[in-house]
Amino acid sequence: MQKLGKQTIKFDKTPKIIETASIVGPKESQGPLAKYFDTCLNDEFWGEKTWEKAESKIIKESISLAINKSKIPSDSIDYCFAGDLLNQCISASFGLRSFSIPYFGIFGACSTFVEGMILSSILISSGAAQNCLFATSSHFCSAEKQFRFPLELGNQRPPTSQWTVTGGASAIVSASGEGPSITYATPGKIVDMGIKDANNMGAAMAPAAVDTIVTHFEDTGREPDYYDMIVTGDLGHIGKSITYEMLKTNGFNVKENYNDCGVLIFDKYTQDTHSGGSGCACCGTVFSGYLFNQLKSKKINKILLIATGALMNSTSSQQGESIPGIAHAVAIENL
Amino acid sequence: MQKLGKQTIKFDKTPKIIETASIVGPKESQGPLAKYFDTCLNDEFWGEKTWEKAESKIIKESISLAINKSKIPSDSIDYCFAGDLLNQCISASFGLRSFSIPYFGIFGACSTFVEGMILSSILISSGAAQNCLFATSSHFCSAEKQFRFPLELGNQRPPTSQWTVTGGASAIVSASGEGPSITYATPGKIVDMGIKDANNMGAAMAPAAVDTIVTHFEDTGREPDYYDMIVTGDLGHIGKSITYEMLKTNGFNVKENYNDCGVLIFDKYTQDTHSGGSGCACCGTVFSGYLFNQLKSKKINKILLIATGALMNSTSSQQGESIPGIAHAVAIENL
Repeated sequence: MQKLGKQTIKFDKTPKIIETASIVGPKESQGPLAKYFDTCLNDEFWGEKTWEKAESKIIKESISLAINKSKIPSDSIDYCFAGDLLNQCISASFGLRSFSIPYFGIFGACSTFVEGMILSSILISSGAAQNCLFATSSHFCSAEKQFRFPLELGNQRPPTSQWTVTGGASAIVSASGEGPSITYATPGKIVDMGIKDANNMGAAMAPAAVDTIVTHFEDTGREPDYYDMIVTGDLGHIGKSITYEMLKTNGFNVKENYNDCGVLIFDKYTQDTHSGGSGCACCGTVFSGYLFNQLKSKKINKILLIATGALMNSTSSQQGESIPGIAHAVAIENL
Repeated sequence: MQKLGKQTIKFDKTPKIIETASIVGPKESQGPLAKYFDTCLNDEFWGEKTWEKAESKIIKESISLAINKSKIPSDSIDYCFAGDLLNQCISASFGLRSFSIPYFGIFGACSTFVEGMILSSILISSGAAQNCLFATSSHFCSAEKQFRFPLELGNQRPPTSQWTVTGGASAIVSASGEGPSITYATPGKIVDMGIKDANNMGAAMAPAAVDTIVTHFEDTGREPDYYDMIVTGDLGHIGKSITYEMLKTNGFNVKENYNDCGVLIFDKYTQDTHSGGSGCACCGTVFSGYLFNQLKSKKINKILLIATGALMNSTSSQQGESIPGIAHAVAIENL
């Protein structure tokens, strides 16, 4: 393992993603990627009394599923990383509580999935661990309740707003075994361009995505066309356009191979999700469901996955603060 | 770097803690450790309009101070880790925003400081980084407002309650340079013994501390008397007694060398802080101020530092959930 350029880590001994699991809510189950998810739920509660408990159950069951699919005994998983959007990351803490796995709580807002992937890869590649698990979740109802308005109010949503994905995603990376390899990681810096509109997260996070993508290309010497796909986490339609334009201004044309998980997960014309999907589970489930399938079946062989996060809360918005963004990137390749 | 036993990491190439910084609020400035802190504040606002903004300023200034004291240019700090108790960790995000350092957000509640130390040490020891910074903060007023009652109500506090430390702490670990070495890390598992009283965090977290300490001794083969000091993060007077008793039941007598940062930071008899200090900054400032000084001056040479966290929020308590605890341990030694 070595540092390359300004902020990229090159994994000489590349960790492998050996298994993933994804569970999604009712709306995602009607979207274009439905067939790729392991479990599609019919209701937002999944038999629980509150949305928060349902979200915890989703992350917990996604972890059980990833462990079962991988056939690795849970006591052979050395460390795990997890986090989510709820205050004090309770979905992750309560979801992970029943697993006896040493636990690092992480918070990268919607960048959490890739943050977990990077830290897991570092532990594997350093020799400190043989198997690491990482997981995240989000829930439309618990997120709306916490960050915006009570759902019962039926508030109208502006066109720039995004729809928090209900779902949970887990993955296991290992020092050995079969699966796509993690070759590079470019952890991101906090970037804040002064956007204050909490209903336009795509615009707030796009500059962070651009900063990380440009740095990744500079650090590795790679060009955009090296990758079959460059995929951001949850910028949605508006953030995706901004990212495309800003990358062009920086001299990188990603017209042919750039997409966004928030654009992919919902149908723009029939699902009424405005600017697209968001939330920790957006990047998490699209990767664990769709993208991992494409990598395993060799339909794509090289992707750059950039998860994006908005590091604010409702108090900071009420106090007039702008929205700091962050984006973490990983290069995942069939070697 | 290698895994030892069930969950311990042994650093062959030991990272060094080359500098720390601590800033504390007015109450901590009147406590028994006041002379060890870099900056003692006269008021809880520090010129800001809100407690949240003050907390962000505290963590930001503690980072500036650690960087200045270390004489390492900030662009030579490869990665940083930070987190805090505020919803979505805004103190850390806003505090770190102006530093152009790739950023990993972490959430371990009051265990955050040691979680950051462990992850920084892994990056250093693996060769992925030369210098890493980690930081945390907490604030009595923002924590009371968020987790309990408006301060203006003047609610009475039960005898088991603890006083959230107002402060910020930062430290820099490096592959080279002078300073105490981080030799072992034992990241903890989530332990939940069913305690539901959010006014008795010491009791909720003590079993996690015991689990990690016992595992550390088993994994390393060390005995309690190997260490000059065994120090937990913020169990306070009640949690400290429980930990002492539970360790004894497990066959480990720590009577001579065990203490707790929450016990050390306030005077039990004059400061009216009931069961003692708590919050991310409790372990952070006591280490960065007092313990680091004792290590540097060789008054103590071997400590086991175990930061403890309660992974709940006010919603989970309202929904009848118990309080999951976690504890992360590091062995810090003058080699």
